[in-house]
Amino acid sequence: MPPNSDRLAVVLVGTRNPLNIGAAARAMSNFGFLRLRVVNPYEVAFREARSAVGASSVLADAEEFQTVAEAVADCTVVVGTTAVRHRDLHHPLHRLEHGGRLMRRELANGRVALMFGTEKTGLSNQDLAYCHWLMHIPTREQHLSMNLGQAVAVCLYELIRDTKARPIRATKRVPAAGAGEVERISSALVEGLHLSGYINPISVETTEDRVRRMVRRLKLSQDDAELWTGMFRQILWKLRGGKKRDS
Amino acid sequence: MPPNSDRLAVVLVGTRNPLNIGAAARAMSNFGFLRLRVVNPYEVAFREARSAVGASSVLADAEEFQTVAEAVADCTVVVGTTAVRHRDLHHPLHRLEHGGRLMRRELANGRVALMFGTEKTGLSNQDLAYCHWLMHIPTREQHLSMNLGQAVAVCLYELIRDTKARPIRATKRVPAAGAGEVERISSALVEGLHLSGYINPISVETTEDRVRRMVRRLKLSQDDAELWTGMFRQILWKLRGGKKRDS
Repeated sequence: MPPNSDRLAVVLVGTRNPLNIGAAARAMSNFGFLRLRVVNPYEVAFREARSAVGASSVLADAEEFQTVAEAVADCTVVVGTTAVRHRDLHHPLHRLEHGGRLMRRELANGRVALMFGTEKTGLSNQDLAYCHWLMHIPTREQHLSMNLGQAVAVCLYELIRDTKARPIRATKRVPAAGAGEVERISSALVEGLHLSGYINPISVETTEDRVRRMVRRLKLSQDDAELWTGMFRQILWKLRGGKKRDS
Repeated sequence: MPPNSDRLAVVLVGTRNPLNIGAAARAMSNFGFLRLRVVNPYEVAFREARSAVGASSVLADAEEFQTVAEAVADCTVVVGTTAVRHRDLHHPLHRLEHGGRLMRRELANGRVALMFGTEKTGLSNQDLAYCHWLMHIPTREQHLSMNLGQAVAVCLYELIRDTKARPIRATKRVPAAGAGEVERISSALVEGLHLSGYINPISVETTEDRVRRMVRRLKLSQDDAELWTGMFRQILWKLRGGKKRDS
């Protein structure tokens, strides 16, 4: 669980679509924020979302309120989300990257409500009056408004982001092939090119040098070099008509 | 549009649910990545998503492919997404925070494919064979698997994140009230407390000092101080029986 995740209440105000309530709950469960509050949802939507197959414990534990005032009563900070940048000049407005940082700080001190409005119109001016500040997901000007479930997912992801994340499984460090092995491959390839008639006798030295440099650029691992050696050995055998050079 | 957004192809492999294709397209449009490719989708799903009301130009321009190989043929790097951390030991695996940084770097050099598997099983081992590395959204162990549309939204958000984001509209800097104005408010409040019988004659000095300190802690702005002064003036007038002190 993210630190202080228990102190965050995700508040959905007047949501109409049961799929959106379900999607919000799923994202909450994915990221470890389990306190969902719904204010005055379209009744059918809330019932349907709750009874949906696979509805998580987030939905089962969701609390229902009649007003925003009741839903945020125990929170020290109320953050509203808005798709519109210039809607309300009375509130500070932060991009999610910055707002997320502020929210994490607030969560260290007390309960925080993160509020999302209806699908069509977002939070009303009356809802906004309960907010301390507003947060904006940086969508592009031509298509500002996000789907509710996706907006919840993106906001919560920002809250759990770990800026110091290291690779979970890095590229394996494998021992590099020795120069001898690399030269064996180069020679085999050069021989194959001779046998197949690729190399023009006039430019033979230039071509051989280019091939040697090309093989070195592959920076082969020990294991892969052995693999290539084996493959070339077999191809050379076939090129020589199925006879070993020594025989 | 985010830098190099034109070079990213979001590739959905074998998607079944038209709502998920639509949601992916919407998130792409929100964040300014407009190249959608679908591989072998459930035919009905793709048709339904395309004809959906409000389907964006992303869906209209989506390209359909029969195989992953064709869908990623023009990409220099193919990144697969996975909900499972330890599935495939052959690929480097990065958390989204780190993978997003790598992807931005790759996008500066060439075309990149970001690939999402089916809703139920994710990318198959065969699909993974086309990937250079894998990316994992840091969901919690108890609920790893995200909804497809939400996963697309979160990944694309990471790509457009601006770590240096400043407030869009900061808290307004308003001139603070002067000490004189603050003292007028304090005096008015003290007088109101006397008139209403709140102040106990025995502890009068202590109480007055506490009130003065309390008013100063409010750190009132000039405008708000005037508002308070006006309100207290009216309340005092009423407390005095509707008569001015001087009259």
